[in-house]
Amino acid sequence: MTTIDEALKANETYAKSYDSALDRPPTPRLAIVTCMDPRLTNILQALGLGAGDADVIRNAGSAITEDSLRSLLVSTRVLGSQEIMIINHTDCGMTTFKDEELDAKLQKLTGTAAVEPARFYSFTDTDLEENTREQVQKVKSHPWIPKHIPIRGFVFDVHTGKLREVAA
Amino acid sequence: MTTIDEALKANETYAKSYDSALDRPPTPRLAIVTCMDPRLTNILQALGLGAGDADVIRNAGSAITEDSLRSLLVSTRVLGSQEIMIINHTDCGMTTFKDEELDAKLQKLTGTAAVEPARFYSFTDTDLEENTREQVQKVKSHPWIPKHIPIRGFVFDVHTGKLREVAA
Repeated sequence: MTTIDEALKANETYAKSYDSALDRPPTPRLAIVTCMDPRLTNILQALGLGAGDADVIRNAGSAITEDSLRSLLVSTRVLGSQEIMIINHTDCGMTTFKDEELDAKLQKLTGTAAVEPARFYSFTDTDLEENTREQVQKVKSHPWIPKHIPIRGFVFDVHTGKLREVAA
Repeated sequence: MTTIDEALKANETYAKSYDSALDRPPTPRLAIVTCMDPRLTNILQALGLGAGDADVIRNAGSAITEDSLRSLLVSTRVLGSQEIMIINHTDCGMTTFKDEELDAKLQKLTGTAAVEPARFYSFTDTDLEENTREQVQKVKSHPWIPKHIPIRGFVFDVHTGKLREVAA
């Protein structure tokens, strides 16, 4: 039995006691960009926020890409989010390899190059804060992001559970 | 006091009782692509999965883009995920507008065009299943995604909490 099959069985039980109050259209107060890493899954809890408070955008390395910008525009311009947090974290998997190494490995393994992704956005541990500052700048400089919205960058320490602000 | 300032205060309390067992490098069993919508924040719970079980990729509309493909490649090729779920949902905010309308609105509001994002990936309610099937096909057809990994597409019903499989 695959993990997905087990998950579908569990969902049958879950749905029986589903709180239908959850189906109201959400009114997010803020948008959060963070990493897909399992250790960031409970980030709202770490911030004292409820699920309904935030649109949560997640990818490998909390990268600000065309896609996360797209999501931030929908969140702020269509859904009404009023603040933006970008949350990187210590010990990120994106610091364990270099773009060119992974690219070469996958070309060798599959026998083919690929047009996309053009970059993996790996970075080194020592670049963590600088990387966060660049991400904040990228969002701030987009012409369609509302000018009045606070855009702040943080590092979440997976050893202590603490959030540290590194860019505003 | 902004929402972010309140969240930082709450994080001080959270960190005091932080479970440092959470700091181990994760070994995700699967990767999930889903929507940034607040109603999808507890999707792991809806699947009987724990935070440590999955890399969770989220964007506006669970879109398969260059960026979500990038994250899926890192999850399967670097971190070891063995299955992929793509989860769309009913009542998605991406069905409430059309790309060209939002584009025109933002150009008018800001007085400027923008190079990115090239698309917003909005869709209509009636396209929900077809959209999910296309997303599954996009992932399957990427030359670097491992061939042996199950890639399955679902619709989460926000009114019942039930997951329905629409593509495999």
